[in-house]
This record gives sequence, structure tokens and C-alpha cells, in this order.
Amino acid sequence: MSAFIAVDWGTTNRRAYRIEDGKVVATERDDRGAASVAVGEYEAEVTGIRARLGDLPMLLAGMVGSNIGWRSVPYVAVPAGLAAVAGALDRIDDHTAIVPGLSYRDGLHADVMRGEEVQLLGAVAAGLVPPDALLCQPGTHCKWATVESGAIVRFTTAMTGELFALLRAHGVLSRQLGHRVEPGGAFLEGVTEGARRDLAASLFAIRARGVLGIADDAHAASFASGLLIGADIAARIERGATVHILADAALGALYASAIDALGGTARHIDSQAAFVAGITRIQDLAA
Amino acid sequence: MSAFIAVDWGTTNRRAYRIEDGKVVATERDDRGAASVAVGEYEAEVTGIRARLGDLPMLLAGMVGSNIGWRSVPYVAVPAGLAAVAGALDRIDDHTAIVPGLSYRDGLHADVMRGEEVQLLGAVAAGLVPPDALLCQPGTHCKWATVESGAIVRFTTAMTGELFALLRAHGVLSRQLGHRVEPGGAFLEGVTEGARRDLAASLFAIRARGVLGIADDAHAASFASGLLIGADIAARIERGATVHILADAALGALYASAIDALGGTARHIDSQAAFVAGITRIQDLAA
Repeated sequence: MSAFIAVDWGTTNRRAYRIEDGKVVATERDDRGAASVAVGEYEAEVTGIRARLGDLPMLLAGMVGSNIGWRSVPYVAVPAGLAAVAGALDRIDDHTAIVPGLSYRDGLHADVMRGEEVQLLGAVAAGLVPPDALLCQPGTHCKWATVESGAIVRFTTAMTGELFALLRAHGVLSRQLGHRVEPGGAFLEGVTEGARRDLAASLFAIRARGVLGIADDAHAASFASGLLIGADIAARIERGATVHILADAALGALYASAIDALGGTARHIDSQAAFVAGITRIQDLAA
Repeated sequence: MSAFIAVDWGTTNRRAYRIEDGKVVATERDDRGAASVAVGEYEAEVTGIRARLGDLPMLLAGMVGSNIGWRSVPYVAVPAGLAAVAGALDRIDDHTAIVPGLSYRDGLHADVMRGEEVQLLGAVAAGLVPPDALLCQPGTHCKWATVESGAIVRFTTAMTGELFALLRAHGVLSRQLGHRVEPGGAFLEGVTEGARRDLAASLFAIRARGVLGIADDAHAASFASGLLIGADIAARIERGATVHILADAALGALYASAIDALGGTARHIDSQAAFVAGITRIQDLAA
């Protein structure tokens, strides 16, 4: 029997799992993300997790391995599969290691991820997506990864969620964007407009439509969300593409309806199952 | 001899001119923009301007005619030339009037301007641009106007400057964008990247290039500015297009170099001369 503890240690939140033979037998979730933990506190945090979930080997993934985390772990350059990730673990001690993130570079363009690689590659390892696929992890920084023969060969991060949050909190549109984002007509109108890929102008039109009284501000947030998500998707897929989405239900449903509207097909993947499969495979490979 | 006072009354700043026979004979500029003046204070403000510049008829243009100004003046729908604008003045009393803004609507898309119409149409009236032309007024909300036979037939506002300001002040890129924007290599690299019209991803790449140490953060603001300006221009012009720019020297030079890089030709127009010509023509038409 193989038992270990996996921690998905993000910027804001942290989720820890006790995994036995590939199955989660205990879990905890809290807000002790890397942004809330000082460098000197990680050892005590890890001791605390072991006290609660068991004195077991431990793999830590995510922002814990960044310059705002415990220590900065070098990125593994793509193409990379789980074996490359497992081969580059940063060992803190003989039963604690940090999973490295991935980097991508193509001329001027560059990209990085930390933590998402476990879910993305885990989805492939678990057979939840085929070995050649396009995966999308929506969020503040939406990750799009192209997998070939089970390895991530390139990826793109779009700060779609962050742009929405900035516009909602600050600037000329903020007064109009306070309502909840809902799927439906206004969202899909935004998707169509977003596919024109002219964000700076399409965003100002939200203000103009409000000023002219030709759109109800109650729908402005949904339209703006559709606009940003539509622009993101339109830059990433051709008609007929299949996109494997790893997301919570609400955001996943928005991305799926936008992908559908732009001529693609969306498939929902269980992101927790993908994480558990990925981290278990890394643990097996590193053992 | 015709003498009058023209006020270009924006959100933040205000500029007043005493104009005689189409020439500026006195001017003043201050920060008593519409955002700083309460509704009940406009009468006293106008009395103050007359005390300094002369007891003359007065035309007020810009945000003074908005819901944050003296009173909200209905927009004139395009196509519209100076005669349509002059015919829709909002008369406060027999020697004081507010110039209306313009609105544009095309299906879902809508746009508005207040104040820029005087410069844009004035540039045509003064013969500074041909009667069929594409005009660009860069800024927080960059205005692009298509003029046919001397009238604005459609226009687009891109919140290019506002997006840059938001990203510089807040969010994940803010730490990288503190340097001055300079023309040159990094700006032009940004323009090229911006022409791909994939803002949300191109912006995140600024962070990735910083994290990976493959770009100096000293150039990040110039690159980001080029990115946003490049995306704006690429959405607006085809190769070979001529753009008439009304802007201050620094921002005008950035737009001109980006237009040049994207295969267009930029011509600089004296925006104050355009304003004076436009407002004088409105005064003549309304007399």
C-alpha cells in the first residue's frame, strides 16, 4: 500500500489530501495559501498538516514553490510530461518535496504555470482526456494547454479573470459591473462581440450602451464576462475544436457555453480527480 | 467683428479661449473640470470666466454637458457635421450654450463622445484634414472617427489609455509597469505583439518574461503600452491607411510610430487649431 499526503498549495487557498492507493481517504481545505504564510512558517505548517493527516511522505504543488512561497523551484521547460515533472522535484528533506512548475518560450512569447501542471497532466494520466488534446483551466489566469502524446507541448495563460476583476473594481465601468454574472443572452452577446477581438473598444461600448439607455446595466457584468471569455476562446480555438475544461461548475458552464457558441465542443473534466491522479503518478514515479 | 468665449470643459481640466475673428486673443487653463464643479456652481464659474475674459457670448463643450456636468445635453446621432451640432446647442440663456456630444449606434455596438467632436470636425472645417479621412484622438479613451464629406459617419472609442492605467495601478503586472513609457524597441515589440489582438494572453506574457528573467522590467511599461496601442490600431486600420492624429506630442509620437510599424501613415494635426476652428464655425452657424 502506498500512502502519502498531497498539498495543492495556491496563492490564496490550500487543499491537502491523504491519498492511499490512488484514493483520497482524508482531506482538508483552508485559506493558508502562499500569500498568507511567511517563509519561516512553512516547516510548522507542514508539521501541522502531518499532525492532522498522518506522518507520511508529502508532495507540495503550486505557488508554495514560487518566490512568494517556501522557496523558488526552477521551472521545467515544455515539452514535459509527468516523468519530467517527477524527475525535477525539489526535495526539502527525505519525505517532503515541492513539485516544479512548467515554462514555455516561443520567441518573444513566454509563459509559466505552477500547480496547474498536476491537474492537466493528471487528466491525461487518468485517461480523463485523450493523449492529444486541448485543455482549459479557466480562472483569474486562465491556462490553455496543448497536450501531445501525453506531454504538455505548449501553453498560454490569458489574464481573463484578472481583467474582469480589475474592470469591476476600478475605472469607468466599475459602477456598471456590480451585478452577478449569469449564463444566457447577455453573456452570449458578449461572447459574439468578444470574438471580434477588439477588447478596448468593446469594453467602452458597455459604457456607451449604458449612457444611451439601450442596455440594462443589470446585464452589463454578464456581457463583460462574455466579452472577455469570448475573446480568450476565439484566440485559442478554431471551429470544430474540442476543449477539455477543468473548472468549478459555474465558471466551467460559462466557458462551455461560450465554446459552444464559437463552434467548439466542451467536455467537463473532474479537476479534483485529475489532480489526485497526477500527484499519485508523480509520487509513484519519484518513489 | 465676432468675439466670443469658448470653453473646452473636460472631466479633469478646463480651458477657456477668448476668440475674435477666429483667432485666440486670450486663454486660461485650470483644473476646474466637471469632476471638480458641483451642479450649483456652474453659474458662478461662468460669471468668473466672463469677468476674466470679457462679457461675451459663450459656448461650452465637453463633459460640462454630461450627467457629471452642468446639465445633461442629448447626443446628436451621427452622421453629423458642424451644422447638425450647431443646430442642437443647448441654450442656458441668451448668451450661453452647451455644445451637444455625438452618439453612434450599429446593432449591438454603440458609442458616445463629448467635446472631441469640436476638434474632429474643426480639423475638417479648417482644412487641416481632407473631407474624407480617418482621425484619431489618443488618450484615456481613444477616439477614432471616420469623416465622409466633412461629417462624422461613425466612430469608435477604445479604452486603451484606461486599460494601461488600470494595469499599472492594480493587479499582477503593476509592480512591473512603473517605468516611463519610451518610444523605441520595446514599445515596437509590444506593437507587433498587440497586432495579434490577444490582449489577455499577451499581457500575462509580460509577467512570464519577468519571472523567467528574459526581459528587463525597465522595458515592461513601454512594451505594455505598445501592446495596447498596437491592438487598438490593428483593429482600426488596414495597411496603407492614413491616420490624422490629434494629440499632445508624446502620445502622438507613440501612436505615429505604431501606425507606421503596422503599415499606415500618420499625420499630426494641431489639435488646438482644430478646436478653435470648430468652435468658431459652430458660433458662426448658431449666430
